[in-house]
Amino acid sequence: MLESTTNWRIWKIDGDAAVETDDEIAAEYPLTFQLDGEEFATIVCSPSALEEMAIGFLASEGIIRTIDDIASLKIDEDRGYIYAELKHKQSTAKTDVSKRFIGSCCGKSRQFYFMNDVRTARTSTSQMKMSAGQAIRLMRLLQQSSAEFQATGGLHNAAICTTESLLAVRADIGRHNALDKLLGYCLQNRIRTTDLIIAFSGRLSSEVVLKAAKIGVGIILSKSAPTDLALQLAHDLGITCAGFVRGEKMNVYTQPQRIIGS
Amino acid sequence: MLESTTNWRIWKIDGDAAVETDDEIAAEYPLTFQLDGEEFATIVCSPSALEEMAIGFLASEGIIRTIDDIASLKIDEDRGYIYAELKHKQSTAKTDVSKRFIGSCCGKSRQFYFMNDVRTARTSTSQMKMSAGQAIRLMRLLQQSSAEFQATGGLHNAAICTTESLLAVRADIGRHNALDKLLGYCLQNRIRTTDLIIAFSGRLSSEVVLKAAKIGVGIILSKSAPTDLALQLAHDLGITCAGFVRGEKMNVYTQPQRIIGS
Repeated sequence: MLESTTNWRIWKIDGDAAVETDDEIAAEYPLTFQLDGEEFATIVCSPSALEEMAIGFLASEGIIRTIDDIASLKIDEDRGYIYAELKHKQSTAKTDVSKRFIGSCCGKSRQFYFMNDVRTARTSTSQMKMSAGQAIRLMRLLQQSSAEFQATGGLHNAAICTTESLLAVRADIGRHNALDKLLGYCLQNRIRTTDLIIAFSGRLSSEVVLKAAKIGVGIILSKSAPTDLALQLAHDLGITCAGFVRGEKMNVYTQPQRIIGS
Repeated sequence: MLESTTNWRIWKIDGDAAVETDDEIAAEYPLTFQLDGEEFATIVCSPSALEEMAIGFLASEGIIRTIDDIASLKIDEDRGYIYAELKHKQSTAKTDVSKRFIGSCCGKSRQFYFMNDVRTARTSTSQMKMSAGQAIRLMRLLQQSSAEFQATGGLHNAAICTTESLLAVRADIGRHNALDKLLGYCLQNRIRTTDLIIAFSGRLSSEVVLKAAKIGVGIILSKSAPTDLALQLAHDLGITCAGFVRGEKMNVYTQPQRIIGS
């Protein structure tokens, strides 16, 4: 039985106080689909109701219409595989399946990296430090910065920052896009990112951490919650993750030396 | 110049009062990438900083390393196309590009539908009605239902409901997955969905509305904000969308007859 949450050692900061404690983190689980013997998608999900998700996914992609179109469905939870067999094989099913999932995944339990990510994600060696107070101030500046978010409530905000100020703020309905806009900004302006920070309104998934690694920063601050896979990746890539940066509080999850004790 | 927000006629409900008014909605804009003359991805985004996003996207996918790898970049805002030419052509670039975008998009300004969606999204003909009070109560039940969300803050919640109660609640770090789990539940249990409701913690993007149409419900309630494309689709598909369902308040955006005046 897979767990929907995992425990993680964190540093809870409230004003000037920092306390080391355990916290429950949402699990992020890569699940690879095999349809009639061929691998065709990997979905990153919460490890619950996997059979329902598999059925819903096949229906949603137009591959089945009713439950009766499925001949068999087997789930290998340990390896993270779903094997689906249809009653009537569809040779065209895969060609027009839509995306939102990952074609090529070299999966090995929790330590999976995608092919493009290996080429582009960098391990941070940043020696920078910042105080919790600076982190909290950056998040406040981020929240004040977006007129569109305030008008519509429908956008993710991301900023690339020094310890003292926001260099650029970008908004998008897609959190990947907001981060891609920042990456484009840094490349266009040939900005050295090693000692910079990303402040982000959205949640910290593995893909967000990978995106931050591609941008090349050492610290990500988020208003929201992380997943366990995001934290595992951040740990491996040497990136400091702080979440729930709200009011005077925040949680530091990985590489705390850049924030704690500054 | 593209606009980041559009105006939409909405019905603002607060307790027993309903007021028709204009509201600003985040724009959702499909942008198709052509790389060295070949179409390879469509990204749904906010229409701002498109050049930065294109550069960041190419870098993030490992196709370029620096801005100097790009020979030219042209954006056709009206048609929603980006044309990128690299200095050194990469014949393999497309084969291992990762997901989060849509391969086959028959785009025509705001009215675009994806190939699989044409096959599986249903126009709702539901004659059901519910009161605003019932909608608010369902959202409260949804928020009370998820222990994992309360523990981690990192999950999306979705429920399939009658006007009076939640039939099934599913949570996931991915909002698509939460909805796929509900779709799988409905198929597995052969549930007739025409007069059911989806209550959802996440934002209403076009993909969420399409997913609701695939499930077959007539009403979606969300705690969060919609995009303009989501509302356009909901209007076309005959689905009632309500957003910002919080406390005693909510906004009804499309097909209000199922809620207003009940």
